[in-house]
Amino acid sequence: MPHPLFDRHAPTLQRALTAIAERGYWSPYSEAPSPRVYGEGAAEAGKAAFDALIDKPFTLDQPGTVGAVGREVSPYGFPLGITYPKADLDQLFAAVAAAQAGWRKAGPEAWVGVCAEILQRINEQSFLFANAVMHTTGQAFMMAFQAGGPHAQDRGLEAVAYAWAEMKRIPASAIWEKPQGKNEPLKMAKQFRIVPRGVGLVIGCCTFPTWNGFPGFFADLATGNAVVVKPHPAAILPLALTVRIARDVLREAGFAPDVVTLVAHEAGDDVAQRLALRPEVRLIDFTGSSANGNWLEANARQAQVYTEKSGVNQIVVDSADDFKALARNVAFSLSLYTGQMCTAPQNIYVPRGGIETATGHLSFDQVAAGIAEAVQKLLGDPARAVEILGAVVNDGVLQRLERARGLGPIVLDTQPIAHPLYPQARIRTPLIVRLDAADGEHYLAEWFGPIAFVIATDSTAASLAIARDAVKAHGALTLSVYSRDGGVVDRAIEVAEDAGVALSINLTGGVFVNQSAAFSDYHGTGANPAANAALTDSAFVASRFRVVQHRVHI
Amino acid sequence: MPHPLFDRHAPTLQRALTAIAERGYWSPYSEAPSPRVYGEGAAEAGKAAFDALIDKPFTLDQPGTVGAVGREVSPYGFPLGITYPKADLDQLFAAVAAAQAGWRKAGPEAWVGVCAEILQRINEQSFLFANAVMHTTGQAFMMAFQAGGPHAQDRGLEAVAYAWAEMKRIPASAIWEKPQGKNEPLKMAKQFRIVPRGVGLVIGCCTFPTWNGFPGFFADLATGNAVVVKPHPAAILPLALTVRIARDVLREAGFAPDVVTLVAHEAGDDVAQRLALRPEVRLIDFTGSSANGNWLEANARQAQVYTEKSGVNQIVVDSADDFKALARNVAFSLSLYTGQMCTAPQNIYVPRGGIETATGHLSFDQVAAGIAEAVQKLLGDPARAVEILGAVVNDGVLQRLERARGLGPIVLDTQPIAHPLYPQARIRTPLIVRLDAADGEHYLAEWFGPIAFVIATDSTAASLAIARDAVKAHGALTLSVYSRDGGVVDRAIEVAEDAGVALSINLTGGVFVNQSAAFSDYHGTGANPAANAALTDSAFVASRFRVVQHRVHI
Repeated sequence: MPHPLFDRHAPTLQRALTAIAERGYWSPYSEAPSPRVYGEGAAEAGKAAFDALIDKPFTLDQPGTVGAVGREVSPYGFPLGITYPKADLDQLFAAVAAAQAGWRKAGPEAWVGVCAEILQRINEQSFLFANAVMHTTGQAFMMAFQAGGPHAQDRGLEAVAYAWAEMKRIPASAIWEKPQGKNEPLKMAKQFRIVPRGVGLVIGCCTFPTWNGFPGFFADLATGNAVVVKPHPAAILPLALTVRIARDVLREAGFAPDVVTLVAHEAGDDVAQRLALRPEVRLIDFTGSSANGNWLEANARQAQVYTEKSGVNQIVVDSADDFKALARNVAFSLSLYTGQMCTAPQNIYVPRGGIETATGHLSFDQVAAGIAEAVQKLLGDPARAVEILGAVVNDGVLQRLERARGLGPIVLDTQPIAHPLYPQARIRTPLIVRLDAADGEHYLAEWFGPIAFVIATDSTAASLAIARDAVKAHGALTLSVYSRDGGVVDRAIEVAEDAGVALSINLTGGVFVNQSAAFSDYHGTGANPAANAALTDSAFVASRFRVVQHRVHI
Repeated sequence: MPHPLFDRHAPTLQRALTAIAERGYWSPYSEAPSPRVYGEGAAEAGKAAFDALIDKPFTLDQPGTVGAVGREVSPYGFPLGITYPKADLDQLFAAVAAAQAGWRKAGPEAWVGVCAEILQRINEQSFLFANAVMHTTGQAFMMAFQAGGPHAQDRGLEAVAYAWAEMKRIPASAIWEKPQGKNEPLKMAKQFRIVPRGVGLVIGCCTFPTWNGFPGFFADLATGNAVVVKPHPAAILPLALTVRIARDVLREAGFAPDVVTLVAHEAGDDVAQRLALRPEVRLIDFTGSSANGNWLEANARQAQVYTEKSGVNQIVVDSADDFKALARNVAFSLSLYTGQMCTAPQNIYVPRGGIETATGHLSFDQVAAGIAEAVQKLLGDPARAVEILGAVVNDGVLQRLERARGLGPIVLDTQPIAHPLYPQARIRTPLIVRLDAADGEHYLAEWFGPIAFVIATDSTAASLAIARDAVKAHGALTLSVYSRDGGVVDRAIEVAEDAGVALSINLTGGVFVNQSAAFSDYHGTGANPAANAALTDSAFVASRFRVVQHRVHI
């Protein structure tokens, strides 16, 4: 069934399919927050739109509303004062059920076309999203714009493209004609219909509500499911904006808007659990703690559950051509968004005997000090530092920082920085603590936040062995290796493939281990405990729909 | 990495990919048990090979053997007397782990090429497999040859083709080049390696050990996993032959044969549970009872579990152009392999006011009697009857038949038939019992075996409503509708798509509701409780491997 929104976005989808097949660089959404791209005054309009939302109820005409919730506080130091509809789940799911009927039957072209249109509308609002992401997550503005805007949109479109690729492989109909020797052949007409699983539940996180939320959201919607979005209580706004835009597009396209709904709730209540256990919910996408992710996997048995959970990301330092470039690169990865990325490195393994570099031997202490110096240099100018660090997302990070200070000798202490515009913002520089390979009880847990350990090991072989075991037992999204020795690099590749973690090799330039690019890098592998799925591959989309056939003699 | 076995079978694989994209009729393995296809004397050689296996230990040079097991009894009335290696699981899994190293690294072309070669060798032994399937499952010879041979091989190749399709979409490498305005672009070389999940466990059933076992077996192996095969204690031989051939091909191709191993065991022991819970097992394919399937889904949490379980297959009779043809077709579906197919119909809903046909009205009783007469006619000649019915697979079926006789008025009683060649064989004709729509407590459970219920309903609308609820609550692999009314057919299609079950419409010719053709029909949908996966689609293969990447600046 053709659909005008599909036709409008078909060239973009086709290009996206080429991109995921080739995995080179591509993005349809510019990461430049520039008036040349987004229009004169777009930045100001986005800020004004954000300001207009502050201290008001968020308009969302969704059924089953029985009050208001919402107590978001900007990590930059002020309450947002926005309230959202509080949903009565039974009423809401009744409305969702009613909305599903027409949506299920619309078919892949409509599903995919509507998704691409939603993404375009979101893209046009990238400055509003940037402000919303900044003041819920604490990301600095540029990162909130890029990671919360175009990069998140990329990840959404990537999921739509994968869904489209899988669905279009199934023919709508076929003639089946089986020879019967001298007799007439058996001949049947068969129709194959793609049917969605039901309701998808998207559980957002507080650090990357759009980047981590969009893949599941768009994978569900692009395969004909209804989507209930449950944001983290601290980061509702970016996903509420998403739901509102989705509902607008659905309505304009002639579908019931309740195909997409929001369930905002208070921290500490049981709404997430009640949602996750509803029989209508057949798909769940979750980003968050291992405790919550494991609970979902164990209990939400009626649903297919996709989780991204905690992990321990690691850097193995064996040797370096250009140690200063290594240190600069690592320093940036430790500092970016205060280390509050699921991909940020935590453990840096260095042989206790030191390492070789192009300019001579460096002792263990020199390596540790060199990385610390690079962090200090990167963050030396407070005005620049706050644009890299952003703000601390919540008190848990501050408490963790304080506990981590007692784990071993401090190589670089964490420091508060005053934000020139937001004096109430909590801003902290990274803490680097020296540990020994024997201190696994400390470094084999995730210390979420700007906390890094430089860990003395017996050798690079020992570092790799620790890294392998850590990934297998505790999970990881990233592994990084620095070596001048091709043999060591090969062994690191073996470790990465054995343990199932993406590896970056000798990053010394403008790419950082915590960054992954849609259409090219797989985020997570699904092969270690940090995530049971990858963003995005066929496995991420293929179980979100089923094929139901009917056949008749002709 | 090219591989000679891939090159040898590439044209077949390519043709299989075309077949699954078009879903027309295709098979590379002839279903004709003819010397023109399989060679002069092939039938006799297959029989002789089977006879040579009887009353002997089955040769399988696999490590960790600590004794012998096996007490298979042919449903045709004689013990096979074959014993199989009894495996010490710890020793066996140690050998599997050692074998995995080389296999994991071999890559998609080798995995797929080895699988296609195994299938060709199995195809060449189709007469041996036919005898093995016949004398473990009770299928009549022709069915054992076709369903246990070429049709099962089709399903295996289909899984290999799907696996190949998903794997070849992932490029081995990419150059990623991101423009940086006036600066030099960021440029990276990326490698993408397909890594298997680990060990796949294939749990066979006693009725279709190859047809239901091959999809999981070949999907696992084609994606680089090791496979441990655990046959049903009553149907070990067909899968033991499979394992032996697979090990031969692996060895000849330079791989460790322990990539594929057999774990035969005694009925009633805990080997299946112990296998399913081993941490090395990351994939499980199961065909069998809902109780066992649900146990696996709930407990084997370290693994991705694909299950085909119990269900209630249904026929909705609304009206008929040619009632005699309807009755003939239904009679064959009830009789084929004594109704011991997971796709065999059980519930036949007929309006209590009767139905319209091209030749006038038929009362409910006339419809029931017409189907009963067609069964009697089909099975009137004992020599022909036994070739359709085959033998009863186990005592459970006989006991169930006896219980079902008491559920309501008997429309057609079950009868024993003497097999001209195998006087000890247990052969039974179908039982047809009349029930009312109110008797859901009886007909909403699976009565596995030659047991059918003709159920009086208030109307076709009521029949469809019962059918829909039955599929949603109890699962089904097949639904069938007979109607002269396009509106009724459309509503049946809606019910099928809503409940998630494959629908056959007005089958009156040489295709039967319990048959599904590889490369064209999806077997199961994964959308109702009878199965959490379909044979075969992308979802069946896409989670059996993961992608691990590494990247480096260039």
